Amino acid sequence: MKIYVEGADPSIRVPMRSIALTNGERHTLYDTSGPYTDPSIAIDVTRGLAPLRAPWIAGRDDTEPSNGARRAKRGRNVSQMHYARRGEITKEMEFIALREGVEPEFVRAEVARGRAIIPCNVNHPESEPMIIGRNFLVKINANIGNSVVASTVEEEVEKMRWATRWGADTVMDLSTGKNIHETREWILRNSPVPIGTVPIYQALEKVDGKAEELTWELYRETLIEQAEQGVDYFTIHAGVLLRYVPLTAQRVTGIVSRGGSILAKWCLAHHRENFLYAHFEEICEIMKAYDVAFSLGDGLRPGCLADANDAAQFAELETLGELTQLAWKHDVQVMIEGPGHVPMHLIKENVEKQLEICAEAPFYTLGPLVTDVAPGYDHITSAIGAAMIGWYGTAMLCYVTPKEHLGLPNKKDVKDGVIAYKIAAHAADVAKGHPRARHWDDVLSKARFEFRWADQFALSLDPDTAEEFHDETLPAESAKLAHFCSMCGPHFCSMKITQEVRAYAEAGMREKSSEFVRSGSELYVEASS
Amino acid sequence: MKIYVEGADPSIRVPMRSIALTNGERHTLYDTSGPYTDPSIAIDVTRGLAPLRAPWIAGRDDTEPSNGARRAKRGRNVSQMHYARRGEITKEMEFIALREGVEPEFVRAEVARGRAIIPCNVNHPESEPMIIGRNFLVKINANIGNSVVASTVEEEVEKMRWATRWGADTVMDLSTGKNIHETREWILRNSPVPIGTVPIYQALEKVDGKAEELTWELYRETLIEQAEQGVDYFTIHAGVLLRYVPLTAQRVTGIVSRGGSILAKWCLAHHRENFLYAHFEEICEIMKAYDVAFSLGDGLRPGCLADANDAAQFAELETLGELTQLAWKHDVQVMIEGPGHVPMHLIKENVEKQLEICAEAPFYTLGPLVTDVAPGYDHITSAIGAAMIGWYGTAMLCYVTPKEHLGLPNKKDVKDGVIAYKIAAHAADVAKGHPRARHWDDVLSKARFEFRWADQFALSLDPDTAEEFHDETLPAESAKLAHFCSMCGPHFCSMKITQEVRAYAEAGMREKSSEFVRSGSELYVEASS
Repeated sequence: MKIYVEGADPSIRVPMRSIALTNGERHTLYDTSGPYTDPSIAIDVTRGLAPLRAPWIAGRDDTEPSNGARRAKRGRNVSQMHYARRGEITKEMEFIALREGVEPEFVRAEVARGRAIIPCNVNHPESEPMIIGRNFLVKINANIGNSVVASTVEEEVEKMRWATRWGADTVMDLSTGKNIHETREWILRNSPVPIGTVPIYQALEKVDGKAEELTWELYRETLIEQAEQGVDYFTIHAGVLLRYVPLTAQRVTGIVSRGGSILAKWCLAHHRENFLYAHFEEICEIMKAYDVAFSLGDGLRPGCLADANDAAQFAELETLGELTQLAWKHDVQVMIEGPGHVPMHLIKENVEKQLEICAEAPFYTLGPLVTDVAPGYDHITSAIGAAMIGWYGTAMLCYVTPKEHLGLPNKKDVKDGVIAYKIAAHAADVAKGHPRARHWDDVLSKARFEFRWADQFALSLDPDTAEEFHDETLPAESAKLAHFCSMCGPHFCSMKITQEVRAYAEAGMREKSSEFVRSGSELYVEASS
Repeated sequence: MKIYVEGADPSIRVPMRSIALTNGERHTLYDTSGPYTDPSIAIDVTRGLAPLRAPWIAGRDDTEPSNGARRAKRGRNVSQMHYARRGEITKEMEFIALREGVEPEFVRAEVARGRAIIPCNVNHPESEPMIIGRNFLVKINANIGNSVVASTVEEEVEKMRWATRWGADTVMDLSTGKNIHETREWILRNSPVPIGTVPIYQALEKVDGKAEELTWELYRETLIEQAEQGVDYFTIHAGVLLRYVPLTAQRVTGIVSRGGSILAKWCLAHHRENFLYAHFEEICEIMKAYDVAFSLGDGLRPGCLADANDAAQFAELETLGELTQLAWKHDVQVMIEGPGHVPMHLIKENVEKQLEICAEAPFYTLGPLVTDVAPGYDHITSAIGAAMIGWYGTAMLCYVTPKEHLGLPNKKDVKDGVIAYKIAAHAADVAKGHPRARHWDDVLSKARFEFRWADQFALSLDPDTAEEFHDETLPAESAKLAHFCSMCGPHFCSMKITQEVRAYAEAGMREKSSEFVRSGSELYVEASS
């Protein structure tokens, strides 16, 4: 059931999913699904969601209309980091504090420190504020987007809705085909979560795919176009420097990041430094005028185990550390993208280096996949790496679907990817000792032990599948009340036997205890101390 | 393609899967699928597989017919550990040395040391020798077996064949319903991999499910019945001691092991010590007469995160350590079962304690699941824990299917579980630095980079799914020769661009180099040093 937790200001209404259990208790979960799961709200995708943040943005009185959108008034900086550093707790921060169960001042301090970001473009007022930082719940991102060869705008909007329904905290629109602008517009107007993009994809579209024809002016225009639409964070591959490109020549799979390879090609063709690096402070000026956050792209990330943690990857990371400081100089929010494909024993080094080099700016990693031998199952190969890297300190995990390396994900793949990553993120929260995380496991385990099947399903990450799998073996409605299940049958159920054991043990204890009372209680006191 | 690597003795023929790549190279993989994937062998499940080990067993001349089976002659010990400790390299060890790519003497030494086991009952001559130990490839086990409420003998035999087809190294038959004996007979006669059981399930069946009516005599008779059939390892919950049972009373999910709960109930009902503990050396006498290996069960393993690494679990582990020494006194092979449900940050402690307490006897763990909130996806929640615990030193990983906690696995679930665990085991091999493990990843990555789609599919853990997923987006046969894929389309393909970058870089290098030759080569020498 959808509920809203209200803040001091009634305009702050934080959505949660509240589950009523059959034993009278309730369990409340973080909810990313937006108004779509609120039956009292009528949805019309042609009109988009309600702009819940619009009054907060207007109330700050530091933006003005520009080209049909909003942007900062001259000389103003509208980034959440800027407010945070001035000591101001925004409505967004208050919203997040309730959502995460922490103090608003803690949210502000983490954003001011650069250890967390709140991606919330002033032109995406429909989004429900969320935070990415390793002292908060681990977040996950789902990639969607059409390509030249497949899928329609409607399909991509539906994938966005579907991904957030299952728990995606942000969505990246990686469209590369026609209608990039229109697809993005539909997604933004209907998205309750922050939207990220890789602007170079659209810029490249404008020069018919010829990387060497890209120019700063064209790219700049693309950034502004997307900032005006409301994109909340941009992946920008400003760390792919000319001198790093030869470091990839001997790799098994070279450069696998699309953005990275485009920029590498540009650098080599012109024998000049990456124009994103050269114009980085100009980009900062744009970012702070709309509050778009940087997601500094790892264009030289490894594309296979053999290339993990190599010179190219770590050289780029050094540059991302340098750019983090530049962005912070402008009070622009930054997170850092990470690999990719990394064997388990090399994962920790990625986090340790990133935290040190990038001064604890949030880490945002793709997987990593811990083996390359299982195409078709890369949601699993990468969920292993994602869980571990989340535990080690990554703030957001970019999902990988079963179709990775093979084709474009359909709705089922999107759900499979999101669920695998919710598992990874939650396992990481538990391992990190997040105070509220393990409570969920305990409540579900208790329901399992007490044969409260309906509660077990309702508390599951995917209640539909849990119930469907149970019913496949025992379809009768009565089986959901049975004190056994199909795995063992009535005689062998260990949970049932344990309950008997417990009863035996208690009875034995009572017996011992009454025996004891009869014989004088001295020893009893001793035994219980 | 199935190939056989022959040993010095022509009766040693080690099966492998050899993949012919389109670039003329070959890649060879470990193969658990048995004669079923050899088209030259006619399969008749009513007759069973050929008893390839029969001449080796007969040649040792230390067994004799007994009750329609074979057992050790009076005073003889036919365990592989016994031969190993006498300095004898058996045919089974030679077979394994070729299979694992190590020296036969190394195999012998590890078995003699107790750090590895070769489960191979003299009455299961159909099995292809394999080894479980942390200095060898990480193995996986698949559980099958019918229960009172579902499935037939034929279905279970087919699940066994299916599980080994996808890579199960051993199979446990956990049947609890009727026809336990008959089901097991069919599975054994048709299984190319070692078969494990939990004999107490059948013993309990004989007393109509009333745990308190179990007796040592009845259990002993069951052990002999199964040893005569050819079961290769027995899970025996001899560590569930009377005094440990109260340690579980305050747990969230009590005792979740079926065997553990049966024995706990027996102990409490009789207020006597576990009869498996009391008669442990008598059990050893049976084990060494047939070469059945112990899989010392963790009857008090945690059933949820809340109960992980608690007093009950580690108390039992101490007893398993004590029993390991007793078994070794009899030269009986031993492995130790482990959890279960463990959050990531507590996994390593399990391995460290097990290695120390059980003197490096192989560890055999179920998962562990790293979160309890995802019923329906426990192949994933547990593959995360399995990969990690395998890396830390677990020798065999017991799979978990998506149906865990919900229902009985069907064929699809068995495959999903096996694939998830092959991923975990291989990722562990890679992280441990196994010399041949990462080569597979590299060969596949190279095929991916070079757009050799057919090779990429053939090298996949599951070629069928990889090809099917690719074809879903780009069904045309020509797409498999295309130098791009559906994710990016022809313009954006990063792999394609990287190849261009490489060409650019090389051309640039040649230019620089010839420029250099023109200007004298001094600096060139320096630069290349």
